[in-house]
Amino acid sequence: MADRSQDHREVEAVNTAFYQAFESADLDTMLDLWLEDPETLCVHPGALPVRGTSAINRSWALIMANTPYIQFFLTDVEVSVLPGVASVTCTENVLTGDDRTGPDAFGGARAVATNVFVRTEQGWRLWIHHASPVLSGDNHDDA
Amino acid sequence: MADRSQDHREVEAVNTAFYQAFESADLDTMLDLWLEDPETLCVHPGALPVRGTSAINRSWALIMANTPYIQFFLTDVEVSVLPGVASVTCTENVLTGDDRTGPDAFGGARAVATNVFVRTEQGWRLWIHHASPVLSGDNHDDA
Repeated sequence: MADRSQDHREVEAVNTAFYQAFESADLDTMLDLWLEDPETLCVHPGALPVRGTSAINRSWALIMANTPYIQFFLTDVEVSVLPGVASVTCTENVLTGDDRTGPDAFGGARAVATNVFVRTEQGWRLWIHHASPVLSGDNHDDA
Repeated sequence: MADRSQDHREVEAVNTAFYQAFESADLDTMLDLWLEDPETLCVHPGALPVRGTSAINRSWALIMANTPYIQFFLTDVEVSVLPGVASVTCTENVLTGDDRTGPDAFGGARAVATNVFVRTEQGWRLWIHHASPVLSGDNHDDA
């Protein structure tokens, strides 16, 4: 159980680093967190999938260039670890701002993210990031 | 490479079985396709996560009871296999109908799904299903 706890902590730390890289528009760190693989997958909220590390890198560069301010308050963070692979699910409560409204403007947007990490010799790396907008208030059973 | 191809075919077959179970409202088959685990995860489009096989089973029972007709046309199906785990990403083009409009009414809804399967002695089983509405036409880079 000690190993399992350590895995959980490591996975959660990489998940936190992912959101911190996004918040600080640290593209280098963001790209380092991803597995180098043509089959990596990234679904930004409401969008079609982006596949492969190169295309995903470009998508983050574009998003960061067009996001003056963003902050995440993560809730319902759940970590699940299987041999060699781990998932984190969390609710992304998003605070955004721009030059006109300032960082105090609360976007109030909410998304659900599934982040799947693969264990590598360099540590856990992102294989899949799938974020989706939450369109209903508290209904867990919508089709 | 032969093994890899076979894995791909097996994973894609289970993915197809998942959508066929949904289409035919075959709850038993749907439940058999899921890993029996308190950390399985299901995100229905626009909804908050449902965690654990019991809660997920209830969510499918409710959805099937409230879906008179549904048909999926899957496009952009991409399979990725790693040791012991595999993912399928696809676009779900959804045809729905009800008693008033009949099954020919084209809902035209579109969702992106990430399905992550785990290899078990009984075959590949669903660990994660995350579906999200596509809100933009063809923009792969939305934040």
